[in-house]
Amino acid sequence: MTLDPSRTVAELRELQELTGDENGAQRVAWTDIWVRAKEWLAEKIPLEAEVDEAGNQWWTLPGPSEKAVLIGGHIDSVPNGGWLDGALNVMAGVEVMRRLVEEGEPAATVRLVNWADEEGARFGRSLFGSSAAAGSMTDQDELRTRKDADGNALPDVLAEHGVELDRALEAQGRLGHAAAYLELHIEQGPVLESLDLPLGVVLGTFGVERHQVTFRGQAAHAGSTPMDARRDALAGAAMLELAIREIAKDAGLGAVCTMGSVVTKPGIVTSVVETAECLLDQRHLDATVLAAMLEGAKGTSERIAEAEDLEVEWERVWNIEPILFDDALIELADESIREVAGASHRLPSGPLHDAAEVARAGVPTVMLFVQSLRGLSHTKLEDTKEEHLELSVQALDRLADRAIAWVER
Amino acid sequence: MTLDPSRTVAELRELQELTGDENGAQRVAWTDIWVRAKEWLAEKIPLEAEVDEAGNQWWTLPGPSEKAVLIGGHIDSVPNGGWLDGALNVMAGVEVMRRLVEEGEPAATVRLVNWADEEGARFGRSLFGSSAAAGSMTDQDELRTRKDADGNALPDVLAEHGVELDRALEAQGRLGHAAAYLELHIEQGPVLESLDLPLGVVLGTFGVERHQVTFRGQAAHAGSTPMDARRDALAGAAMLELAIREIAKDAGLGAVCTMGSVVTKPGIVTSVVETAECLLDQRHLDATVLAAMLEGAKGTSERIAEAEDLEVEWERVWNIEPILFDDALIELADESIREVAGASHRLPSGPLHDAAEVARAGVPTVMLFVQSLRGLSHTKLEDTKEEHLELSVQALDRLADRAIAWVER
Repeated sequence: MTLDPSRTVAELRELQELTGDENGAQRVAWTDIWVRAKEWLAEKIPLEAEVDEAGNQWWTLPGPSEKAVLIGGHIDSVPNGGWLDGALNVMAGVEVMRRLVEEGEPAATVRLVNWADEEGARFGRSLFGSSAAAGSMTDQDELRTRKDADGNALPDVLAEHGVELDRALEAQGRLGHAAAYLELHIEQGPVLESLDLPLGVVLGTFGVERHQVTFRGQAAHAGSTPMDARRDALAGAAMLELAIREIAKDAGLGAVCTMGSVVTKPGIVTSVVETAECLLDQRHLDATVLAAMLEGAKGTSERIAEAEDLEVEWERVWNIEPILFDDALIELADESIREVAGASHRLPSGPLHDAAEVARAGVPTVMLFVQSLRGLSHTKLEDTKEEHLELSVQALDRLADRAIAWVER
Repeated sequence: MTLDPSRTVAELRELQELTGDENGAQRVAWTDIWVRAKEWLAEKIPLEAEVDEAGNQWWTLPGPSEKAVLIGGHIDSVPNGGWLDGALNVMAGVEVMRRLVEEGEPAATVRLVNWADEEGARFGRSLFGSSAAAGSMTDQDELRTRKDADGNALPDVLAEHGVELDRALEAQGRLGHAAAYLELHIEQGPVLESLDLPLGVVLGTFGVERHQVTFRGQAAHAGSTPMDARRDALAGAAMLELAIREIAKDAGLGAVCTMGSVVTKPGIVTSVVETAECLLDQRHLDATVLAAMLEGAKGTSERIAEAEDLEVEWERVWNIEPILFDDALIELADESIREVAGASHRLPSGPLHDAAEVARAGVPTVMLFVQSLRGLSHTKLEDTKEEHLELSVQALDRLADRAIAWVER
């Protein structure tokens, strides 16, 4: 066995040199730098790359049957991003593929996929390639009208990269024989670091309820309006911001509620706030608990509005069901982690990942998380200890072997 | 006596026809419409207008001595403003002047002034003409660099209107013999309406403390960061927003505290708020109470920051001391109001007015407030009942007579 995890770390640094700058990684999908990264990636793998109708890159090491273990990742990044999200997953996959190629025909077909545009940084549509392959891309009409910040239309830019939006869903053929999907990712949160553990198994991705909650009161002169004559929309937002912390606490471990933005109007120092537009994000791994958290926040907002003589309005921005990973693969992942690191931990994923799309398509799926220092990601400050990165490549490698054996059983 | 308050109402409607549109009043200072309004105004008064070095218009009815009673107002408005702020004060003054002219030489000199640019709508510098005349315009260097939204420099635009910025302070000569200053204004607040009273006497203008309060926490992924690992700057802002209501309540009647704006950064639904920039406005008529309110808010913000593991920083945006009006003139105003309306009420002014600048210059000053419907101003919805407008002209007229007698005593 010639697995060399230190090579993965060296290649990640090489990639950062090639495609990053002093502000961080710049591998935004559908840009020249991204194309350069994909060409560089293709040179690292001793197999021929194929590109599907959604722009995903595939490398196949055929086994005796078509039943396939997939290892996935994405080489695209946000602007000014980190060196690991998601290059680590695809580069660890490269190392595993090289080891498997060297060993000859595997017991099952193994395929590595570099998903196109996981981050959605240029057009605000994340999980592009994986949702096309999963068949869950139902927003093509809307995507046709999307433009980037410079006014370039999404279909035109994709066409420059050889992708016809209308045909993207044909990428579904690629998941036809998929029997397991594996993905390694940095945690992007502080849980493993706080437990002093290098690696964890992901139970699934959180369900998300995302709403704009708008409180409406009455603009009034800050100098001439007595306190008891005010209808201050900001007071409603403030009360809800504090209440969602209690709602998350009551929902138990793993529940998160975030008010990520408040926009105050008219937003001037001489006026009581008339309108406070709040963006609320609630997540849980259990759909029933998530629904209860949402109902709790709605009820609270209505009680606040009544007490403060405000109006409150809820508008759903986006939501997704919790997506649970495969129990058997979770067991195999746990074993693999314990083998290389001694101890494992099971945790949900707050952020979405391509793995969630693959799981939604019915492919048994699991993810490995490796510790993120200070929980930071989507910034050049994103980092993970080298010894943890190397352990993560080893764990993915062990998991790949177990998954190959498992799909053939 | 031929005072005709209904004529004032008719003239105000005529002015609105001439200088307003479907969005409201458009008499923004240093614009063509403002010039038209001033020319129209000059035609209404049977005296010669003089213009001082700051662009203020003056009309003088000489008495036996130079000791003068001043009646003031401003005909400029905000864009899309109301029909009464401040045209009512100057048009009521016109009616009083016409009555006095008809009666022959008054017992003291009486002067009407139309202050230039009370609103500061074009260049963001309010009380321009009155602060020049009061000698409190200390920001000429800064004004020299100001531009309007189209990039026109303040000194150039003023020069087009015959005003040299460098010489504006020479308008101070105009207050040399001023012995009393009277100003009528709509309340711009809900107090008189809530008391069902048409008129009130203003005790002075609030002192104001205006600060930007910035809470700093840590941006963190909304999905992957457990609630107990967060440093949410918005929680700090929310707690302070709710705390300032208690601080105002504890400071007693007349205290107001307003958080008019919160800006959240990064301000995206997928991140805990790292920075919350709050604009805080605190007002009181008593300087000691105002200082205590400020200290209270600072102390509270520091306790919040400590409890939430945030940093908090205070930066003063602007402040002004409370300006108290003249006790004897307040008595005379009270008598005048009771005479025409039966009952009076004393209240502070939250908004600033030209009267505050004149009072700061040492001239005994008082203001009359007339009820504002729903407390609205700076909008075309601004309104006051016609019978209240007529009462206000009568009250100003009675007050003028009392002040003339008072300055001669």
